[in-house]
Amino acid sequence: MRVRKVKNVEEKLEQYDGLLIQNPRDYKGKWNTLFNNDNPIYLEIGMGKGKFIYNHAKLNPNINYLGLEKDSSIVCKALVNNSVDAPDNLKYIWLDASYLKEVFEDKEIQKVYLNFSDPWPKTRHEKRRLTSKTFLNDILDILEGTIEFKTDNRHLFEYSIMEFNQMKLEIIDLSLDLHQDKEDVITTEYEDKFMQKGNVIYYCEVKR
Amino acid sequence: MRVRKVKNVEEKLEQYDGLLIQNPRDYKGKWNTLFNNDNPIYLEIGMGKGKFIYNHAKLNPNINYLGLEKDSSIVCKALVNNSVDAPDNLKYIWLDASYLKEVFEDKEIQKVYLNFSDPWPKTRHEKRRLTSKTFLNDILDILEGTIEFKTDNRHLFEYSIMEFNQMKLEIIDLSLDLHQDKEDVITTEYEDKFMQKGNVIYYCEVKR
Repeated sequence: MRVRKVKNVEEKLEQYDGLLIQNPRDYKGKWNTLFNNDNPIYLEIGMGKGKFIYNHAKLNPNINYLGLEKDSSIVCKALVNNSVDAPDNLKYIWLDASYLKEVFEDKEIQKVYLNFSDPWPKTRHEKRRLTSKTFLNDILDILEGTIEFKTDNRHLFEYSIMEFNQMKLEIIDLSLDLHQDKEDVITTEYEDKFMQKGNVIYYCEVKR
Repeated sequence: MRVRKVKNVEEKLEQYDGLLIQNPRDYKGKWNTLFNNDNPIYLEIGMGKGKFIYNHAKLNPNINYLGLEKDSSIVCKALVNNSVDAPDNLKYIWLDASYLKEVFEDKEIQKVYLNFSDPWPKTRHEKRRLTSKTFLNDILDILEGTIEFKTDNRHLFEYSIMEFNQMKLEIIDLSLDLHQDKEDVITTEYEDKFMQKGNVIYYCEVKR
Protein backbone atom coordinates (compact mmCIF):
# COMPACT_ATOMS: atom_id res chain seq x y z
CA MET A 1 0.00 0.00 0.00
CA ARG A 2 1.47 3.35 -0.98
CA VAL A 3 0.56 6.12 1.44
CA ARG A 4 1.97 9.57 1.92
CA LYS A 5 4.50 9.51 4.75
CA VAL A 6 3.29 11.11 7.96
CA LYS A 7 5.69 13.73 9.34
CA ASN A 8 7.11 13.19 12.82
CA VAL A 9 5.27 9.91 12.85
CA GLU A 10 6.89 8.43 15.94
CA GLU A 11 5.95 11.43 18.05
CA LYS A 12 2.41 11.18 16.77
CA LEU A 13 2.19 7.46 17.54
CA GLU A 14 3.12 8.20 21.16
CA GLN A 15 0.00 10.32 21.47
CA TYR A 16 -2.17 7.27 20.94
CA ASP A 17 -1.12 5.37 24.01
CA GLY A 18 -4.09 3.17 24.83
CA LEU A 19 -5.32 2.10 21.42
CA LEU A 20 -1.69 1.64 20.27
CA ILE A 21 0.38 -0.80 22.31
CA GLN A 22 3.73 0.92 22.77
CA ASN A 23 5.69 -2.07 24.10
CA PRO A 24 4.08 -5.17 22.63
CA ARG A 25 6.96 -7.44 23.72
CA ASP A 26 5.96 -6.83 27.34
CA TYR A 27 2.70 -8.70 26.76
CA LYS A 28 4.15 -11.91 25.37
CA GLY A 29 2.29 -14.79 27.01
CA LYS A 30 -0.08 -12.44 28.85
CA TRP A 31 -2.15 -10.59 26.26
CA ASN A 32 -5.25 -11.61 28.16
CA THR A 33 -4.10 -9.35 31.02
CA LEU A 34 -4.13 -6.40 28.63
CA PHE A 35 -7.75 -7.07 27.72
CA ASN A 36 -8.53 -8.08 31.29
CA ASN A 37 -10.48 -11.18 30.21
CA ASP A 38 -9.91 -14.66 28.76
CA ASN A 39 -11.72 -14.11 25.48
CA PRO A 40 -10.10 -15.43 22.30
CA ILE A 41 -7.61 -13.14 20.56
CA TYR A 42 -7.81 -12.62 16.79
CA LEU A 43 -4.84 -11.04 15.03
CA GLU A 44 -4.79 -9.27 11.67
CA ILE A 45 -1.30 -9.17 10.18
CA GLY A 46 -1.09 -6.14 7.89
CA MET A 47 -4.18 -4.30 9.05
CA GLY A 48 -3.65 -1.33 6.74
CA LYS A 49 -5.85 1.57 7.80
CA GLY A 50 -7.75 -0.70 10.17
CA LYS A 51 -11.28 -0.73 8.77
CA PHE A 52 -11.60 -4.51 8.73
CA ILE A 53 -10.44 -5.19 12.26
CA TYR A 54 -12.23 -2.16 13.69
CA ASN A 55 -15.55 -3.36 12.28
CA HIS A 56 -14.94 -6.89 13.52
CA ALA A 57 -14.19 -5.56 17.01
CA LYS A 58 -17.35 -3.44 17.04
CA LEU A 59 -19.49 -6.44 16.00
CA ASN A 60 -17.93 -9.02 18.32
CA PRO A 61 -17.35 -7.61 21.81
CA ASN A 62 -16.53 -11.07 23.18
CA ILE A 63 -13.48 -11.43 20.98
CA ASN A 64 -10.28 -9.43 21.40
CA TYR A 65 -8.68 -8.01 18.27
CA LEU A 66 -5.09 -7.04 17.58
CA GLY A 67 -4.14 -5.24 14.39
CA LEU A 68 -0.52 -5.48 13.33
CA GLU A 69 1.00 -3.13 10.77
CA LYS A 70 4.65 -2.57 9.92
CA ASP A 71 4.37 0.82 8.23
CA SER A 72 4.33 3.57 10.85
CA SER A 73 2.54 6.06 8.58
CA ILE A 74 -0.24 3.56 7.96
CA VAL A 75 -0.53 2.76 11.67
CA CYS A 76 -0.86 6.50 12.21
CA LYS A 77 -3.73 6.71 9.73
CA ALA A 78 -5.49 3.76 11.37
CA LEU A 79 -5.17 5.54 14.73
CA VAL A 80 -6.48 8.82 13.34
CA ASN A 81 -9.42 6.99 11.75
CA ASN A 82 -10.44 4.88 14.74
CA SER A 83 -9.14 6.32 17.99
CA VAL A 84 -12.20 8.36 18.94
CA ASP A 85 -14.67 5.55 19.48
CA ALA A 86 -12.43 2.51 19.45
CA PRO A 87 -13.93 -0.36 21.46
CA ASP A 88 -12.03 -1.83 24.43
CA ASN A 89 -11.51 -5.14 22.63
CA LEU A 90 -9.32 -3.56 19.93
CA LYS A 91 -5.63 -2.73 20.06
CA TYR A 92 -3.09 -1.82 17.40
CA ILE A 93 0.56 -2.83 17.19
CA TRP A 94 3.26 -1.20 15.07
CA LEU A 95 5.45 -4.18 14.22
CA ASP A 96 6.97 -6.09 11.35
CA ALA A 97 5.60 -9.64 11.13
CA SER A 98 9.17 -10.96 11.33
CA TYR A 99 9.00 -10.33 15.06
CA LEU A 100 5.76 -12.22 15.72
CA LYS A 101 7.42 -14.74 17.99
CA GLU A 102 8.99 -12.03 20.13
CA VAL A 103 5.52 -10.72 20.89
CA PHE A 104 3.29 -13.81 21.12
CA GLU A 105 3.66 -17.03 23.04
CA ASP A 106 2.94 -20.36 21.32
CA LYS A 107 -0.80 -20.89 20.78
CA GLU A 108 -1.67 -17.47 22.22
CA ILE A 109 -3.77 -16.44 19.17
CA GLN A 110 -7.05 -18.06 18.13
CA LYS A 111 -7.32 -16.71 14.59
CA VAL A 112 -5.03 -14.94 12.13
CA TYR A 113 -6.31 -12.78 9.28
CA LEU A 114 -4.13 -12.14 6.24
CA ASN A 115 -5.93 -9.62 4.04
CA PHE A 116 -4.53 -8.41 0.73
CA SER A 117 -0.97 -9.02 1.81
CA ASP A 118 1.77 -7.58 -0.36
CA PRO A 119 2.10 -10.05 -3.29
CA TRP A 120 5.83 -9.48 -3.78
CA PRO A 121 5.50 -10.71 -7.35
CA LYS A 122 9.19 -11.21 -8.12
CA THR A 123 10.46 -14.73 -7.41
CA ARG A 124 13.51 -13.33 -5.62
CA HIS A 125 11.16 -11.65 -3.12
CA GLU A 126 9.19 -14.83 -2.45
CA LYS A 127 10.42 -15.02 1.14
CA ARG A 128 8.81 -11.67 1.90
CA ARG A 129 5.31 -12.99 1.16
CA LEU A 130 3.34 -13.58 4.36
CA THR A 131 2.19 -16.96 3.04
CA SER A 132 5.74 -18.22 2.44
CA LYS A 133 6.92 -21.05 4.66
CA THR A 134 9.03 -19.01 7.09
CA PHE A 135 6.21 -16.60 7.97
CA LEU A 136 3.64 -19.41 7.95
CA ASN A 137 5.71 -21.42 10.41
CA ASP A 138 5.84 -18.46 12.81
CA ILE A 139 2.11 -17.88 12.40
CA LEU A 140 1.31 -21.55 13.00
CA ASP A 141 3.44 -21.54 16.15
CA ILE A 142 1.56 -18.68 17.80
CA LEU A 143 -1.82 -19.89 16.53
CA GLU A 144 -4.34 -22.28 17.98
CA GLY A 145 -7.03 -21.96 15.34
CA THR A 146 -7.39 -21.01 11.70
CA ILE A 147 -5.82 -18.60 9.21
CA GLU A 148 -8.27 -16.67 7.03
CA PHE A 149 -6.62 -15.36 3.89
CA LYS A 150 -8.07 -13.17 1.17
CA THR A 151 -6.58 -11.40 -1.81
CA ASP A 152 -7.44 -10.22 -5.29
CA ASN A 153 -3.99 -11.17 -6.53
CA ARG A 154 -4.35 -14.37 -8.54
CA HIS A 155 -0.69 -15.34 -8.49
CA LEU A 156 -0.38 -14.73 -4.76
CA PHE A 157 -3.45 -16.89 -4.20
CA GLU A 158 -2.15 -19.74 -6.38
CA TYR A 159 1.21 -19.54 -4.64
CA SER A 160 -0.43 -19.53 -1.21
CA ILE A 161 -2.62 -22.56 -1.92
CA MET A 162 0.48 -24.44 -3.02
CA GLU A 163 2.37 -23.36 0.12
CA PHE A 164 -0.56 -24.42 2.34
CA ASN A 165 -0.64 -27.74 0.50
CA GLN A 166 3.12 -28.29 0.85
CA MET A 167 2.89 -27.55 4.56
CA LYS A 168 0.05 -30.09 4.75
CA LEU A 169 -2.39 -27.56 6.17
CA GLU A 170 -6.05 -28.49 6.01
CA ILE A 171 -8.17 -26.29 3.74
CA ILE A 172 -11.43 -25.72 5.62
CA ASP A 173 -13.02 -23.27 3.23
CA LEU A 174 -12.18 -22.02 -0.25
CA SER A 175 -13.85 -19.53 -2.56
CA LEU A 176 -12.65 -18.20 -5.89
CA ASP A 177 -15.28 -15.46 -5.72
CA LEU A 178 -15.87 -14.61 -2.09
CA HIS A 179 -18.51 -11.95 -2.59
CA GLN A 180 -20.57 -14.23 -4.84
CA ASP A 181 -20.53 -16.93 -2.18
CA LYS A 182 -20.97 -14.95 1.05
CA GLU A 183 -23.11 -12.07 2.17
CA ASP A 184 -22.20 -9.51 4.81
CA VAL A 185 -18.47 -9.89 4.28
CA ILE A 186 -16.53 -7.39 6.39
CA THR A 187 -14.24 -5.68 3.91
CA THR A 188 -10.93 -3.86 4.04
CA GLU A 189 -10.30 -0.48 2.40
CA TYR A 190 -8.39 -2.30 -0.34
CA GLU A 191 -11.19 -4.77 -0.90
CA ASP A 192 -13.72 -1.98 -1.46
CA LYS A 193 -11.45 -0.46 -4.08
CA PHE A 194 -10.83 -3.79 -5.83
CA MET A 195 -14.50 -4.66 -5.88
CA GLN A 196 -15.32 -1.32 -7.47
CA LYS A 197 -12.92 -2.30 -10.25
CA GLY A 198 -14.83 -5.57 -10.63
CA ASN A 199 -11.97 -7.74 -9.36
CA VAL A 200 -12.76 -11.15 -7.96
CA ILE A 201 -11.74 -11.72 -4.33
CA TYR A 202 -10.15 -15.09 -3.54
CA TYR A 203 -10.61 -16.54 -0.05
CA CYS A 204 -9.26 -19.48 1.88
CA GLU A 205 -9.36 -20.70 5.49
CA VAL A 206 -6.75 -23.19 6.67
CA LYS A 207 -5.53 -24.83 9.85
CA ARG A 208 -2.78 -27.19 10.95
CA MET B 1 -22.54 -32.90 -22.32
CA ARG B 2 -25.90 -33.11 -24.07
CA VAL B 3 -25.66 -34.75 -27.49
CA ARG B 4 -28.31 -36.14 -29.76
CA LYS B 5 -28.53 -39.91 -29.25
CA VAL B 6 -27.08 -41.96 -32.10
CA LYS B 7 -29.48 -44.60 -33.47
CA ASN B 8 -28.38 -48.25 -33.31
CA VAL B 9 -25.31 -47.03 -31.52
CA GLU B 10 -24.00 -50.41 -30.40
CA GLU B 11 -24.05 -51.76 -33.93
CA LYS B 12 -22.20 -48.69 -35.09
CA LEU B 13 -19.57 -49.01 -32.36
CA GLU B 14 -18.81 -52.54 -33.56
CA GLN B 15 -17.80 -51.16 -36.92
CA TYR B 16 -14.90 -49.31 -35.31
CA ASP B 17 -13.02 -52.34 -34.11
CA GLY B 18 -9.40 -51.23 -34.00
CA LEU B 19 -9.69 -47.67 -32.76
CA LEU B 20 -12.36 -48.74 -30.26
CA ILE B 21 -11.34 -51.46 -27.83
CA GLN B 22 -14.31 -53.83 -27.72
CA ASN B 23 -13.27 -55.86 -24.66
CA PRO B 24 -11.17 -53.56 -22.48
CA ARG B 25 -11.25 -55.97 -19.52
CA ASP B 26 -9.15 -58.41 -21.53
CA TYR B 27 -6.23 -55.98 -21.44
CA LYS B 28 -6.05 -55.50 -17.69
CA GLY B 29 -2.38 -55.63 -16.71
CA LYS B 30 -1.23 -55.94 -20.33
CA TRP B 31 -2.19 -52.74 -22.12
CA ASN B 32 1.38 -52.49 -23.36
CA THR B 33 0.73 -55.62 -25.49
CA LEU B 34 -2.08 -53.79 -27.23
CA PHE B 35 0.24 -50.96 -28.21
CA ASN B 36 3.10 -53.39 -28.78
CA ASN B 37 5.59 -51.23 -26.86
CA ASP B 38 6.49 -50.18 -23.34
CA ASN B 39 5.75 -46.48 -23.74
CA PRO B 40 3.86 -44.72 -20.95
CA ILE B 41 0.06 -44.82 -21.11
CA TYR B 42 -1.95 -41.65 -20.57
CA LEU B 43 -5.69 -41.95 -19.90
CA GLU B 44 -8.37 -39.30 -20.37
CA ILE B 45 -11.47 -40.08 -18.31
CA GLY B 46 -14.45 -38.49 -20.03
CA MET B 47 -12.88 -37.79 -23.41
CA GLY B 48 -16.06 -36.36 -24.94
CA LYS B 49 -15.71 -36.12 -28.70
CA GLY B 50 -12.02 -36.87 -28.44
CA LYS B 51 -10.36 -33.74 -29.78
CA PHE B 52 -8.01 -33.30 -26.81
CA ILE B 53 -6.65 -36.83 -26.69
CA TYR B 54 -6.49 -37.16 -30.47
CA ASN B 55 -4.31 -34.04 -30.70
CA HIS B 56 -2.10 -35.24 -27.85
CA ALA B 57 -1.64 -38.60 -29.58
CA LYS B 58 -0.72 -36.94 -32.87
CA LEU B 59 1.85 -34.71 -31.17
CA ASN B 60 3.42 -37.36 -28.94
CA PRO B 61 3.98 -40.63 -30.81
CA ASN B 62 6.07 -42.02 -27.94
CA ILE B 63 3.17 -41.93 -25.51
CA ASN B 64 0.13 -44.21 -25.72
CA TYR B 65 -3.26 -42.61 -25.21
CA LEU B 66 -6.53 -44.12 -24.03
CA GLY B 67 -9.75 -42.15 -24.14
CA LEU B 68 -12.54 -43.31 -21.86
CA GLU B 69 -16.14 -42.19 -22.31
CA LYS B 70 -19.28 -43.59 -20.73
CA ASP B 71 -21.85 -42.22 -23.18
CA SER B 72 -22.08 -44.50 -26.22
CA SER B 73 -23.41 -41.76 -28.49
CA ILE B 74 -20.46 -39.53 -27.63
CA VAL B 75 -18.00 -42.37 -28.16
CA CYS B 76 -19.64 -42.84 -31.57
CA LYS B 77 -19.08 -39.18 -32.43
CA ALA B 78 -15.44 -39.38 -31.34
CA LEU B 79 -15.00 -42.42 -33.62
CA VAL B 80 -16.68 -40.72 -36.57
CA ASN B 81 -14.47 -37.64 -36.05
CA ASN B 82 -11.15 -39.42 -35.66
CA SER B 83 -11.21 -42.90 -37.13
CA VAL B 84 -9.88 -42.08 -40.59
CA ASP B 85 -6.41 -40.94 -39.65
CA ALA B 86 -6.16 -42.04 -36.02
CA PRO B 87 -2.55 -42.68 -35.00
CA ASP B 88 -1.52 -46.12 -33.69
CA ASN B 89 -0.87 -44.75 -30.20
CA LEU B 90 -4.55 -43.85 -29.65
CA LYS B 91 -7.41 -46.11 -28.55
CA TYR B 92 -10.90 -45.40 -27.28
CA ILE B 93 -12.86 -47.24 -24.61
CA TRP B 94 -16.60 -47.12 -24.01
CA LEU B 95 -16.79 -47.50 -20.25
CA ASP B 96 -18.12 -45.89 -17.09
CA ALA B 97 -15.30 -44.73 -14.79
CA SER B 98 -16.83 -46.84 -11.99
CA TYR B 99 -15.23 -49.88 -13.66
CA LEU B 100 -11.69 -48.45 -13.89
CA LYS B 101 -10.24 -51.12 -11.64
CA GLU B 102 -11.76 -53.92 -13.71
CA VAL B 103 -9.83 -52.64 -16.71
CA PHE B 104 -6.51 -51.40 -15.33
CA GLU B 105 -3.97 -53.02 -13.04
CA ASP B 106 -2.46 -51.01 -10.18
CA LYS B 107 0.06 -48.43 -11.45
CA GLU B 108 -0.60 -49.31 -15.09
CA ILE B 109 -1.30 -45.68 -16.11
CA GLN B 110 1.29 -42.87 -16.08
CA LYS B 111 -1.05 -39.89 -16.33
CA VAL B 112 -4.79 -39.25 -15.95
CA TYR B 113 -6.56 -36.30 -17.55
CA LEU B 114 -9.86 -35.08 -16.15
CA ASN B 115 -11.17 -32.38 -18.47
CA PHE B 116 -14.42 -30.53 -17.85
CA SER B 117 -15.90 -33.40 -15.88
CA ASP B 118 -19.60 -33.23 -15.11
CA PRO B 119 -19.86 -30.85 -12.10
CA TRP B 120 -22.91 -32.61 -10.57
CA PRO B 121 -23.74 -29.40 -8.71
CA LYS B 122 -26.26 -30.85 -6.26
CA THR B 123 -24.77 -31.96 -2.96
CA ARG B 124 -26.69 -35.23 -3.10
CA HIS B 125 -24.86 -36.04 -6.35
CA GLU B 126 -21.42 -35.31 -4.91
CA LYS B 127 -20.33 -38.95 -5.16
CA ARG B 128 -20.80 -38.86 -8.92
CA ARG B 129 -18.12 -36.20 -9.35
CA LEU B 130 -14.92 -37.67 -10.74
CA THR B 131 -12.89 -35.74 -8.16
CA SER B 132 -14.81 -37.19 -5.20
CA LYS B 133 -12.90 -39.53 -2.92
CA THR B 134 -14.24 -42.84 -4.26
CA PHE B 135 -13.31 -42.11 -7.87
CA LEU B 136 -10.03 -40.47 -6.83
CA ASN B 137 -9.05 -43.56 -4.85
CA ASP B 138 -9.62 -45.77 -7.89
CA ILE B 139 -7.70 -43.36 -10.09
CA LEU B 140 -4.79 -43.20 -7.64
CA ASP B 141 -4.66 -46.99 -7.50
CA ILE B 142 -4.23 -47.45 -11.24
CA LEU B 143 -1.93 -44.42 -11.54
CA GLU B 144 1.80 -44.04 -11.23
CA GLY B 145 2.09 -40.36 -12.09
CA THR B 146 0.00 -37.23 -11.99
CA ILE B 147 -3.61 -36.20 -12.50
CA GLU B 148 -4.17 -33.13 -14.68
CA PHE B 149 -7.55 -31.56 -14.06
CA LYS B 150 -9.18 -28.62 -15.81
CA THR B 151 -12.63 -27.11 -15.69
CA ASP B 152 -14.45 -23.83 -16.10
CA ASN B 153 -16.80 -24.71 -13.25
CA ARG B 154 -15.75 -22.68 -10.23
CA HIS B 155 -17.59 -24.73 -7.64
CA LEU B 156 -16.29 -28.02 -9.05
CA PHE B 157 -12.78 -26.61 -8.94
CA GLU B 158 -13.10 -25.38 -5.34
CA TYR B 159 -14.57 -28.75 -4.34
CA SER B 160 -11.80 -30.64 -6.13
CA ILE B 161 -8.98 -28.64 -4.53
CA MET B 162 -10.51 -29.40 -1.13
CA GLU B 163 -10.82 -33.11 -1.98
CA PHE B 164 -7.19 -33.21 -3.18
CA ASN B 165 -6.17 -31.47 0.03
CA GLN B 166 -8.16 -33.85 2.23
CA MET B 167 -6.59 -36.81 0.46
CA LYS B 168 -3.19 -35.22 1.10
CA LEU B 169 -2.30 -35.15 -2.59
CA GLU B 170 0.55 -32.88 -3.58
CA ILE B 171 -0.40 -29.94 -5.79
CA ILE B 172 2.36 -29.68 -8.40
CA ASP B 173 0.83 -26.95 -10.53
CA LEU B 174 -2.14 -24.64 -10.15
CA SER B 175 -3.59 -21.92 -12.36
CA LEU B 176 -6.78 -19.95 -11.91
CA ASP B 177 -6.52 -18.74 -15.52
CA LEU B 178 -4.81 -21.44 -17.54
CA HIS B 179 -4.83 -19.68 -20.89
CA GLN B 180 -3.29 -16.54 -19.39
CA ASP B 181 -0.48 -18.59 -17.90
CA LYS B 182 0.29 -21.10 -20.65
CA GLU B 183 0.64 -20.97 -24.40
CA ASP B 184 -0.10 -23.80 -26.81
CA VAL B 185 -2.62 -25.46 -24.49
CA ILE B 186 -4.27 -28.44 -26.20
CA THR B 187 -7.97 -27.78 -25.76
CA THR B 188 -11.14 -29.86 -25.67
CA GLU B 189 -14.29 -29.07 -27.69
CA TYR B 190 -15.87 -27.77 -24.47
CA GLU B 191 -12.88 -25.61 -23.66
CA ASP B 192 -13.06 -23.86 -27.05
CA LYS B 193 -16.73 -23.08 -26.42
CA PHE B 194 -16.13 -21.81 -22.89
CA MET B 195 -13.22 -19.66 -23.96
CA GLN B 196 -15.33 -18.06 -26.66
CA LYS B 197 -17.74 -17.08 -23.90
CA GLY B 198 -14.83 -15.51 -22.03
CA ASN B 199 -14.87 -18.05 -19.21
CA VAL B 200 -11.73 -18.57 -17.19
CA ILE B 201 -10.28 -22.10 -17.25
CA TYR B 202 -9.03 -23.46 -13.92
CA TYR B 203 -6.19 -25.98 -13.93
CA CYS B 204 -4.46 -28.18 -11.40
CA GLU B 205 -1.93 -31.01 -11.47
CA VAL B 206 -1.66 -33.33 -8.47
CA LYS B 207 0.03 -36.53 -7.42
CA ARG B 208 0.10 -38.86 -4.45
